[in-house]
Amino acid sequence: MSTPYKYRRLDRDDAAVLLVDHQTGLCNLVRDFSPDDFKNMVLALANSAKYFNLPTILTTSFEAGPNGPLMPEIKELFPEAPYVARPGQINAWDNEDFVKAIRATGKKQLIIAGVVTEVCVAFVALSAIEAGFEVFVVADASGTFNQTTRDASWARMQAAGAQLMTWFAVACELHRDWRNDMEGLGALFAKHLPSYANLISSFNAARK
Amino acid sequence: MSTPYKYRRLDRDDAAVLLVDHQTGLCNLVRDFSPDDFKNMVLALANSAKYFNLPTILTTSFEAGPNGPLMPEIKELFPEAPYVARPGQINAWDNEDFVKAIRATGKKQLIIAGVVTEVCVAFVALSAIEAGFEVFVVADASGTFNQTTRDASWARMQAAGAQLMTWFAVACELHRDWRNDMEGLGALFAKHLPSYANLISSFNAARK
Amino acid sequence: MSTPYKYRRLDRDDAAVLLVDHQTGLCNLVRDFSPDDFKNMVLALANSAKYFNLPTILTTSFEAGPNGPLMPEIKELFPEAPYVARPGQINAWDNEDFVKAIRATGKKQLIIAGVVTEVCVAFVALSAIEAGFEVFVVADASGTFNQTTRDASWARMQAAGAQLMTWFAVACELHRDWRNDMEGLGALFAKHLPSYANLISSFNAARK
Amino acid sequence: MSTPYKYRRLDRDDAAVLLVDHQTGLCNLVRDFSPDDFKNMVLALANSAKYFNLPTILTTSFEAGPNGPLMPEIKELFPEAPYVARPGQINAWDNEDFVKAIRATGKKQLIIAGVVTEVCVAFVALSAIEAGFEVFVVADASGTFNQTTRDASWARMQAAGAQLMTWFAVACELHRDWRNDMEGLGALFAKHLPSYANLISSFNAARK
Amino acid sequence: MSTPYKYRRLDRDDAAVLLVDHQTGLCNLVRDFSPDDFKNMVLALANSAKYFNLPTILTTSFEAGPNGPLMPEIKELFPEAPYVARPGQINAWDNEDFVKAIRATGKKQLIIAGVVTEVCVAFVALSAIEAGFEVFVVADASGTFNQTTRDASWARMQAAGAQLMTWFAVACELHRDWRNDMEGLGALFAKHLPSYANLISSFNAARK
Amino acid sequence: MSTPYKYRRLDRDDAAVLLVDHQTGLCNLVRDFSPDDFKNMVLALANSAKYFNLPTILTTSFEAGPNGPLMPEIKELFPEAPYVARPGQINAWDNEDFVKAIRATGKKQLIIAGVVTEVCVAFVALSAIEAGFEVFVVADASGTFNQTTRDASWARMQAAGAQLMTWFAVACELHRDWRNDMEGLGALFAKHLPSYANLISSFNAARK
Amino acid sequence: MSTPYKYRRLDRDDAAVLLVDHQTGLCNLVRDFSPDDFKNMVLALANSAKYFNLPTILTTSFEAGPNGPLMPEIKELFPEAPYVARPGQINAWDNEDFVKAIRATGKKQLIIAGVVTEVCVAFVALSAIEAGFEVFVVADASGTFNQTTRDASWARMQAAGAQLMTWFAVACELHRDWRNDMEGLGALFAKHLPSYANLISSFNAARK
Amino acid sequence: MSTPYKYRRLDRDDAAVLLVDHQTGLCNLVRDFSPDDFKNMVLALANSAKYFNLPTILTTSFEAGPNGPLMPEIKELFPEAPYVARPGQINAWDNEDFVKAIRATGKKQLIIAGVVTEVCVAFVALSAIEAGFEVFVVADASGTFNQTTRDASWARMQAAGAQLMTWFAVACELHRDWRNDMEGLGALFAKHLPSYANLISSFNAARK
Repeated sequence: MSTPYKYRRLDRDDAAVLLVDHQTGLCNLVRDFSPDDFKNMVLALANSAKYFNLPTILTTSFEAGPNGPLMPEIKELFPEAPYVARPGQINAWDNEDFVKAIRATGKKQLIIAGVVTEVCVAFVALSAIEAGFEVFVVADASGTFNQTTRDASWARMQAAGAQLMTWFAVACELHRDWRNDMEGLGALFAKHLPSYANLISSFNAARK
Repeated sequence: MSTPYKYRRLDRDDAAVLLVDHQTGLCNLVRDFSPDDFKNMVLALANSAKYFNLPTILTTSFEAGPNGPLMPEIKELFPEAPYVARPGQINAWDNEDFVKAIRATGKKQLIIAGVVTEVCVAFVALSAIEAGFEVFVVADASGTFNQTTRDASWARMQAAGAQLMTWFAVACELHRDWRNDMEGLGALFAKHLPSYANLISSFNAARK
Repeated sequence: MSTPYKYRRLDRDDAAVLLVDHQTGLCNLVRDFSPDDFKNMVLALANSAKYFNLPTILTTSFEAGPNGPLMPEIKELFPEAPYVARPGQINAWDNEDFVKAIRATGKKQLIIAGVVTEVCVAFVALSAIEAGFEVFVVADASGTFNQTTRDASWARMQAAGAQLMTWFAVACELHRDWRNDMEGLGALFAKHLPSYANLISSFNAARK
Repeated sequence: MSTPYKYRRLDRDDAAVLLVDHQTGLCNLVRDFSPDDFKNMVLALANSAKYFNLPTILTTSFEAGPNGPLMPEIKELFPEAPYVARPGQINAWDNEDFVKAIRATGKKQLIIAGVVTEVCVAFVALSAIEAGFEVFVVADASGTFNQTTRDASWARMQAAGAQLMTWFAVACELHRDWRNDMEGLGALFAKHLPSYANLISSFNAARK
Repeated sequence: MSTPYKYRRLDRDDAAVLLVDHQTGLCNLVRDFSPDDFKNMVLALANSAKYFNLPTILTTSFEAGPNGPLMPEIKELFPEAPYVARPGQINAWDNEDFVKAIRATGKKQLIIAGVVTEVCVAFVALSAIEAGFEVFVVADASGTFNQTTRDASWARMQAAGAQLMTWFAVACELHRDWRNDMEGLGALFAKHLPSYANLISSFNAARK
Repeated sequence: MSTPYKYRRLDRDDAAVLLVDHQTGLCNLVRDFSPDDFKNMVLALANSAKYFNLPTILTTSFEAGPNGPLMPEIKELFPEAPYVARPGQINAWDNEDFVKAIRATGKKQLIIAGVVTEVCVAFVALSAIEAGFEVFVVADASGTFNQTTRDASWARMQAAGAQLMTWFAVACELHRDWRNDMEGLGALFAKHLPSYANLISSFNAARK
Repeated sequence: MSTPYKYRRLDRDDAAVLLVDHQTGLCNLVRDFSPDDFKNMVLALANSAKYFNLPTILTTSFEAGPNGPLMPEIKELFPEAPYVARPGQINAWDNEDFVKAIRATGKKQLIIAGVVTEVCVAFVALSAIEAGFEVFVVADASGTFNQTTRDASWARMQAAGAQLMTWFAVACELHRDWRNDMEGLGALFAKHLPSYANLISSFNAARK
Repeated sequence: MSTPYKYRRLDRDDAAVLLVDHQTGLCNLVRDFSPDDFKNMVLALANSAKYFNLPTILTTSFEAGPNGPLMPEIKELFPEAPYVARPGQINAWDNEDFVKAIRATGKKQLIIAGVVTEVCVAFVALSAIEAGFEVFVVADASGTFNQTTRDASWARMQAAGAQLMTWFAVACELHRDWRNDMEGLGALFAKHLPSYANLISSFNAARK
């Protein structure tokens, strides 16, 4: 605590997004969020990555097996993104192509989400920190078997220096100032925050 | 209990849907569901009504005030539906136009959902039962301030003879047999049940 | 279930309110609500009784002992109300003065709340039903030791024919139509429903 | 309530078991129990049916599709049981073969469990009650999307006269007296109640 | 509901208490209460039975086996009570000695608690109702494996006409009037309600 | 941990309060507290700031839009406070006027609360720590979308060295000694802690 | 983390216990534990202090006012203990007598519990750490207004280097080896852990 | 945080497993998991140890007393494992044979689980860290009295540098790459993750 604190803040010019194993089979194992909430928050992160035009890297584990294919909505959002179908490595960081794709972005901040949290997310996060990256884990776009497992994995990642965030904080920290694009950000929020969309609808109606 | 039990089963030829006060201001008062879950389930019911082509009646309370406008998605789904903007009646059944619109459908089964449960839903439900209708309350497309309020209102409606259902049960009971339209029903479920959509995606991928 | 259902609806011309043992010592035993929520909801009911000008009867059990005095806010709201300090009866209905005060109102609908739910409320409720009154229990203005106790007491009262309500449902069912007094009711809601007050503030600001 | 109450008690000579749609895809939709708990309790019921030698009827909905095959453990337990793969009926009672198989048992008590509770279980339960059977729903061997849905479906079935039970109560009510077979019942409990198995292990160790 | 409601109220001259299988092994299976809470509430009921001098009947199931001996505190409280060690009957009502002991009391109101709720309590309760007794289940002095099981068993007993109570409601309904014995009842409450004991201590200190 | 620990304790002569975006629209997004609790705790902090006469700085984000106006009670409490209506900056620290206002107080301890926690509070907190301030986050006067988001944001702020507090701890740490003003502090607590107010009422009654 | 970790282990020859403000009024504010659990755990810690013969220091805040007297059971357990009735200091460490009494014990490990956690416990704990003591907070013998407050106070104390423990861990760490006194420790556990008492009773019965 | 982070990753060639006091009596004290979940996860860890052929050390505390014998399934899995029946030491690390057995493995990574978490696990974990080992606590194969106790013990262990994991993360981190043995790992997961087993069954059925 005695060294001066440096606020490592997300920077849209220095950040890349890693989406790890959001596959339809694995998603049905997730029980620390309701299915509606989880789908919404994963897509909120994906749409944020898209909106901020961040380099995004996709990876999967045995799409052709019980883990199932990548969520189709993600596939559609990033047709050109590097896509690493791992032949067996559980920790995606053990896959050279994956790390190469990350390094190719030239970014030093990594925004990571995936399924399941304590494996697909945590292993990558710990490896990335060790490799010198700044790591931001998107806690609500990552899911796992139960709350106990989530709590333990958060503790492990936090102890290693990962910053725990949620998709809304990520979007806000990247955007910095509403004046950069008021409508675009508002549309992103309205799409993934029904209660915020309600505020906007009520406001617009009141103005009429 | 000694009189023989009659299974009053939803019949697509004899059912109408009442959507009561799903307004954007009121929806932000709802705290017995997450906003994602609630929006999804309200639209799931609305899309079910549409899918089964059930006469649907909309009503609101002071759209021009703090209660806010009807959820825009509902408005779009039912552009031709009877729409009763009540001038002041809290219990929609006290509004003659609303009851007339219901009687005009000629149906005797009423599927009811709304915000908030213990007022906008319960008052209508109790009035409808008294008037001789069969009432099916869609519990997960109706929301209120907290769990205690919900529990109390369920108890009151159940004691009066209302059948407590959820949107999925409503859709299944109306459809009766998958062979009536396999793709249509599957699409409805996939849209509003992300975990079921995952099953379908995984299945299709496995078949390839 | 075969007899036709009669919707016994609160009628401001036929209802009285019984506030049983909302004493400061007893209130600190309540753990099925947070203290903020409980105080707010008890006062919401009391202010509703005042607003609708319903005859209100107060009773306490040993104010001079550990149970403590009646909540001061209630005392101030109803300076003229019949006030029965029971010399020992646990069930207030066993106290003749209390029952006389009720009968003196000439009303047949009783709105009951108190502390603790399974005793001070339930005993009175069951006695009143037996005596032929229509009983409406205000579930969120009544508190007790824990959730299990609450659930059991609700089940007992419901089986006896009591209608479980919450203060907001009571106010809405009494008011019937916003046009009877828009500002008054709005002020009552704004005072006791912070989220509704927020809707109003936002709306008014948007209109400017 | 005025008619004398008749305790309709499970009778091993007059009971049949219906296992409805415990398919591997559907089981992954269940979120009102942990996966371990749910699998254990479904198999506990299945093993109880086996132990008491009750006629057991299996049915599934589109095993060849996303709903997935029947849980393999159930298939293995009942190789000779009537097995109705429904061509489309959502309510299994709408399938003639299913009802015939039930009537062929000659039993009038039906023990029902399945996935999901508000559809596959509730529809069958309500139809069976209407048809004059005594219905016992095994609440912990039936699963669904969330707690709200479960609560609503319980309320509906209970109002119709279904008796809500859990597998342990079913086994105990069927067995009546430990002396009928002490070891067998003990083994069944030890297998599916780890805490009871612990009691037995501790006891045996202490006796040495 | 159309027949006039009769408030069946506990009467200290017409009530007996049945404590069913509160054995040390079985108590360790209970998980719908914390161990401290459960022990306290069982003893609160036992001490209430003692305080009101109600005939109390004890029964156990295989004390010499894994179920373990009766809680020693209960044994000590009722050294003279009829004690039926059942040779095998799961439903204590199937044991003639147990029923004889009950009938020998000449009481028609039965206050029942035990472990586990859905078997040891529910079976006895349902049998007793069928036999014409008035049944009061003490919900918080009865325990079971989990909340789901408890909910299901409450529903079954309630549907049969059992009144769900908790020990505090039982004590209050039996006592009727504090003037019957102020100190005795106060001592009983102080012993088993720490928060009420705190009120008394604070009050006494303030008076000094 | 090896450097000696320094207890950075709130000092009423060296602390300022930052209230960030407690706007009526945003407050309706808060779901990690009940509306009653949240309103009460925000005002408890505001009244504490007032009571201790701490320099207080207000800031809002687009009051004229869907976010809504500042809570009117806060506006009234601090009519003279610096008030920074940010033209677009999401992190208030990015607004020069805001930081200038803070520096103008000459204080080095910042007590921060706001809506939503992970953005409006966390961004300011992290920036302030980086700028060398001691940061005290008032956890119960800050709200957000759900518990998961709150947990993640707490972890991030804690890792940066922020001290997590609640309004009552803030008030107590600032006051140091009851003898500084017994009545004033007592009145503050009685106003915002109903259970403490109950203690006082009971005590005063007992003394009479 | 790079400095070698030193396991600071409780040592019965080097530990003192501080019980801060366990007063009957304040205890009724505690809502992060049930009253039964809280009373039991506070007394479990007190009895552990007694059993291990640890110097114990008591302090209270305005016993003569609404905060109420010290829990009588604690007073009785430690008739000779230093007892500091603070004239006004909120943080007991600001009271010279209190600190003197601690220093007089000559111990460097402080085991601290009290009400409320974030003030009476946390302030003392942080001061003690600053003063060079090793601090062990007994989390389950300390209580506060709600779970949020508890979580925030734990985070603050943990960040300062306090070790979070519970009474059972304290007793076990002090005892080191069952052979030091098997019966005494067993009796302590049996008294405050009903589930452990059940194990002992069952074991003893099985041995007969 | 300023020293570069080193990802201490489980290595199957450098890890040993310690199973501490998973005894049948103690397991019945565990209430932070359901009995089904807990048994399943303990055996999942044990089977993982077996699968990866890790040296495994068993220890118990007074098997011949109320704590009960080691879970029989664990005994059967490791017939040849070092087995230290401690004569009295509560912290197994205080037992020389236990530490010798650990050192004899020559491993420097210790995977630890046991009952109860804050004593049998935490004491060993803290001692092992002090002794220079890398410690991985398997949070879901360790159980204790309640959630509060668990949270406190996690905080203490985490502050000391223990890595909090769950059995699934342990297995995945040890395995590194599915290609090392696809079938074996799949079988392990299918056995202890019913939802994963469902994915496999569904997949295989779809392929047919």
